Amino acid sequence: MPRIVDHDRRRAEIARLAVRVMQRDGAESATVRGIAKAGGFSIGVLSHYFRDKDELVGFAFQWVAQQSFADLDAAVAGVPPGLARLRTALEFMVPASGAPSFIRVWLNLWGGAMGNPKLARVHRDYYARWRRYLRRYLREAVRQREIAAPRSLRNTTDLLTAAVDGYWIGAAFEPRRFPVRRRRALVAGLLATVLRPARAA
Amino acid sequence: MPRIVDHDRRRAEIARLAVRVMQRDGAESATVRGIAKAGGFSIGVLSHYFRDKDELVGFAFQWVAQQSFADLDAAVAGVPPGLARLRTALEFMVPASGAPSFIRVWLNLWGGAMGNPKLARVHRDYYARWRRYLRRYLREAVRQREIAAPRSLRNTTDLLTAAVDGYWIGAAFEPRRFPVRRRRALVAGLLATVLRPARAA
Repeated sequence: MPRIVDHDRRRAEIARLAVRVMQRDGAESATVRGIAKAGGFSIGVLSHYFRDKDELVGFAFQWVAQQSFADLDAAVAGVPPGLARLRTALEFMVPASGAPSFIRVWLNLWGGAMGNPKLARVHRDYYARWRRYLRRYLREAVRQREIAAPRSLRNTTDLLTAAVDGYWIGAAFEPRRFPVRRRRALVAGLLATVLRPARAA
Repeated sequence: MPRIVDHDRRRAEIARLAVRVMQRDGAESATVRGIAKAGGFSIGVLSHYFRDKDELVGFAFQWVAQQSFADLDAAVAGVPPGLARLRTALEFMVPASGAPSFIRVWLNLWGGAMGNPKLARVHRDYYARWRRYLRRYLREAVRQREIAAPRSLRNTTDLLTAAVDGYWIGAAFEPRRFPVRRRRALVAGLLATVLRPARAA
């Protein structure tokens, strides 16, 4: 077993390294050569863990997606279920930090995913999971009578997902229009616009 | 003058060619060498029109942005001002065609723009212009008493922009979840959710 554990751990370390290279220098630098150089090991070592660049980049994106949900779980852990968790999760997706760590990586995933079915699949799996989170919070909020049941849970989930994507893209490229305080206000406004108050009993 | 006209026309032709290469093969293939090869001319000819790859790619993205607004103008030309134009413009931005021509190019712009201020500027200019369109249509719709004045024109514009960005990203990577008919329904639902009906006189 130790060898397998080591192998998996090494792959995760290399994925982390590839992500760092993409964050710093963009996807074009995330070549086998560039990643090996950044890690201070030979190309031969790298090819022991990944067949080719495609496998490495695909694995790195999966690692980013996995990490994002681990961070999201941590962000909502102390927050009560329902509406409060929904708000926290949406705010989490429109990062407050000035230089959001995974944004560049995710934009590069999109750039590559149009011509690469494996990367497109990482996108689909990520969004399917993100929508499950949102549906769960929405259902909790309805059950706790914080909001009325959405007319369409599917459409409401897709609108929240879409709007938050647009906001973080805006925040990434137009930080002056979307300063941190305004991002929170936009998320609050989004919820006030999209959700309907529960009827008085 | 003819020489300048020829020069500008040639630059536009090369930009179109670069966009075609990006659409077909992704940003990685939009090298000076790859574009020259696709056009059937030498690298020397290309360097007569563009100093380097960055200048060429920046110009190509500007050309795409320009072309998008020309297409948008054509799409709304026969549509009455106000709410009808707003709907048409939003539908235009969530393309109905199965293989939307500029989506791959735009995703590649984003991938590159995080590390390239000139490309980031193309994004900002494009979005500033797109928001001007939306504000104009919203104001027309208010003036024509089709809708109540938004509580915040700025927030409403940013929400419409953000949601539509999220929808076309969804449509690009999850066409089965976002079939063409549903895209129209989502735009209609977005307007119904975000806009408030005009008060009866």
